[in-house]
Amino acid sequence: MTLEFVQDDAIAIATAVRQQKVSASQIITNTLNRIDQRDKKLNCFTALTDGSALQQAEEIDRQIAQGQEPGPLAGVPFAVKNLFDIQGITTIAGSIIDAEKPSAKQDATVITRLKQAGAILVGALNMDEYAYGFVTENSHYGPVHNPHDLNRIAGGSSGGSGAAVAGGLVPLSLGSDTNGSIRVPAALCGIYGLKPTYGRLSRAGMTLFSGSLDHVGPLGRSVRDMAIAFDIMQGPDPRDPICYTGDPEPTLSQLNQGIDGLRIAVASGHFATGGEPEVHAAVEQVAKALSTTQTVTIPEAARARAAAYIITATEGANLHFADLKRRPQDFDPATRDRFLAGLFIPASWYIQAQRFRQWYRDRVRELFQTVDIIIAPTTPTPATRIGQQTLIINGEEVLLRPNLGLYTQPLSFIGLPVISVPLQPSQGLPVGVQLIAAPYQEASLLKVAAFLEAQGVTRVLSAKC
Amino acid sequence: MTLEFVQDDAIAIATAVRQQKVSASQIITNTLNRIDQRDKKLNCFTALTDGSALQQAEEIDRQIAQGQEPGPLAGVPFAVKNLFDIQGITTIAGSIIDAEKPSAKQDATVITRLKQAGAILVGALNMDEYAYGFVTENSHYGPVHNPHDLNRIAGGSSGGSGAAVAGGLVPLSLGSDTNGSIRVPAALCGIYGLKPTYGRLSRAGMTLFSGSLDHVGPLGRSVRDMAIAFDIMQGPDPRDPICYTGDPEPTLSQLNQGIDGLRIAVASGHFATGGEPEVHAAVEQVAKALSTTQTVTIPEAARARAAAYIITATEGANLHFADLKRRPQDFDPATRDRFLAGLFIPASWYIQAQRFRQWYRDRVRELFQTVDIIIAPTTPTPATRIGQQTLIINGEEVLLRPNLGLYTQPLSFIGLPVISVPLQPSQGLPVGVQLIAAPYQEASLLKVAAFLEAQGVTRVLSAKC
Repeated sequence: MTLEFVQDDAIAIATAVRQQKVSASQIITNTLNRIDQRDKKLNCFTALTDGSALQQAEEIDRQIAQGQEPGPLAGVPFAVKNLFDIQGITTIAGSIIDAEKPSAKQDATVITRLKQAGAILVGALNMDEYAYGFVTENSHYGPVHNPHDLNRIAGGSSGGSGAAVAGGLVPLSLGSDTNGSIRVPAALCGIYGLKPTYGRLSRAGMTLFSGSLDHVGPLGRSVRDMAIAFDIMQGPDPRDPICYTGDPEPTLSQLNQGIDGLRIAVASGHFATGGEPEVHAAVEQVAKALSTTQTVTIPEAARARAAAYIITATEGANLHFADLKRRPQDFDPATRDRFLAGLFIPASWYIQAQRFRQWYRDRVRELFQTVDIIIAPTTPTPATRIGQQTLIINGEEVLLRPNLGLYTQPLSFIGLPVISVPLQPSQGLPVGVQLIAAPYQEASLLKVAAFLEAQGVTRVLSAKC
Repeated sequence: MTLEFVQDDAIAIATAVRQQKVSASQIITNTLNRIDQRDKKLNCFTALTDGSALQQAEEIDRQIAQGQEPGPLAGVPFAVKNLFDIQGITTIAGSIIDAEKPSAKQDATVITRLKQAGAILVGALNMDEYAYGFVTENSHYGPVHNPHDLNRIAGGSSGGSGAAVAGGLVPLSLGSDTNGSIRVPAALCGIYGLKPTYGRLSRAGMTLFSGSLDHVGPLGRSVRDMAIAFDIMQGPDPRDPICYTGDPEPTLSQLNQGIDGLRIAVASGHFATGGEPEVHAAVEQVAKALSTTQTVTIPEAARARAAAYIITATEGANLHFADLKRRPQDFDPATRDRFLAGLFIPASWYIQAQRFRQWYRDRVRELFQTVDIIIAPTTPTPATRIGQQTLIINGEEVLLRPNLGLYTQPLSFIGLPVISVPLQPSQGLPVGVQLIAAPYQEASLLKVAAFLEAQGVTRVLSAKC
């Protein structure tokens, strides 16, 4: 294997493996070597599954040699945020408290499905403790560094999932998104990140942060990889009672159908204000490429964000109630203080937030009667410096950590499917643009993203570090 | 019309009207006269719909004279708890605050359906303010008096609905049940009260108390009236998004199919302790009549009750948040203090209560794999004196108001269908026994109740007052 595979996407690697241009074993050996060399700087991985990965690779090579079908992602290395169960490893969810738990008995459903498709799990990835954060400056396991500038954050809470892909360690990773935790690191690391519709992918075997908001999704280097990973992970799961039970809708086969007939508009109001100039310039560039001058106003987006905070803090705090009482000193300070505050939020606020959510969901559904795709920035800023505490938004200095979700929270709040696509300004760091659709319209999102990718509007660059 | 119709059930009245033994107009005139004479003492009605009732009666008499089908409840007077919308009347829900609202534009769906079946609405009935209570000692509109002893409560919160039926003012009424508000007054007034499965009957046009707990149901003098009213009110309702969309299952036609094959058990543990001897004696009498010596333990019933309190107080308080801040002095003191406390319950408790609810629902569902009908007392005591504040339970003096729901709360908490059937001890006041089934098994409940009624085990007596 030559190093050229390092920046290839998953489908390119699987194709090379199937065509026996490279063996799965070579891919995995090189991947593990590359992680060994480069992850000292990036700090993406908290555990490797090198033994089982090499075994699985040999098995795939044997299948190919025997002319058997090795699966559509044969030989593709992938890694997962360390809140997904990996059989034989303890699921730590970014914490030291959960590190005391026994190892998982079974892989998370989404891991099982990717493995069944031939993909090879190489390890578990760093994250904000209990997924509560946008920066992945984990006090127990250290910060994840942005592959485009090691002094900057990778975003969070799926920071390891973003940096491992952007840094060329794996072509594909899994993250979870509660308020933006897939989209924010995808944007700051300059890659693709798909947050499907709430409940569309199984959460079985995943440590929850805030049950009514948590989503599973892939991060990767190409739109076709987003589509194939989504297609493979789709489908009902008896292990997850909230998982969508409708028929899977394959999206990969629809990617090149074009975008004719899709009504596309740019989000105005909340989504058009408050960020750095380059993020709004990126939205304009996408709008121009899609030939749209339409705008659409998502009503009460700021209130939706406030309500998402309340629900996140209270549901999250409740899940960790016992540990917060017994051993608060063992939490990451940034997580602990917000969870403790979450314990004291009045239930009336929580109920009000849930009631507002219903109203807001109905209003946004109405919007989708006149538009199919809405465009908005992913984050208000490109990657900030590690340790940076504040940010200027609308001329006001505000805390950085919560405000990285300014544009993502109002969308996950009602479970809309969103893809963050990467743009590369002529100078400076990558920025992300969100494409947003009505529930279960992932195929539309991916078609538009594929169009932008084909036009060269969105691109994944090789990381410098 | 002779006064004998006063203690007849709805089906008997409808039959007499259809057979032209009495006209609908005579029934309504006599009903209104009787309300005029007797409600001074009982205090059931807060509004009469005498004009429209007489009009509808004349229309029914005209239909019958012309040989048209007047509906299965033709000429039957009924009345509803004053939290159901009645077109042209303001829905007060036991409050003076809501009395300032405009009149309702449309009848509640359940009223519309009963009217379409020929039943005639004669008025709105007294209740605890915003349905928050078990005593119907409403500080604005006065207490409802028990027809069997005017110094005693009728129970609540649907106290007017219980006393109006027991006092012979109407054969049929509607109530709502959040933690026991149909079953408690049915028991204390010595009549039947059916709380169907959560969501089975439309709540459109009803003022909610606690959305995740509120149920609609009928109160009446016979099991067949419970069945026919339930059958008429069943069916999907586009006005109520949570209303069951499955096919209605007629129950009246199944009443006399007997109870062979139904596995019946008495609830032990929580439900077998803490009440007065006569309520447990009534349960034994029912068990004996049903030839069962089986018992079954509903796990964690006391915890279910605690969780129901938390959800009720917080959801209720949230619905009245604005008024509680602006004009707390206009609430009934008994309601206000609990709502204010509800505003300060931490969200973490509420979420914990909802999470426990899921666990408890699953455990109770498992129970129903081995039993079809569970028997339990309805209240821990027969009707107590108006003004009485405490009660002895397990040798401890406890507050009366909350503890009237001791045996009802753990069942409505997970939406199980329950009928309270009336027993008449040889001396003293009536007591109620709950028959409890798995979700959507109302037909089983009604069959068992019909069996007990046919055996003379359960009876509705003429009220003394």
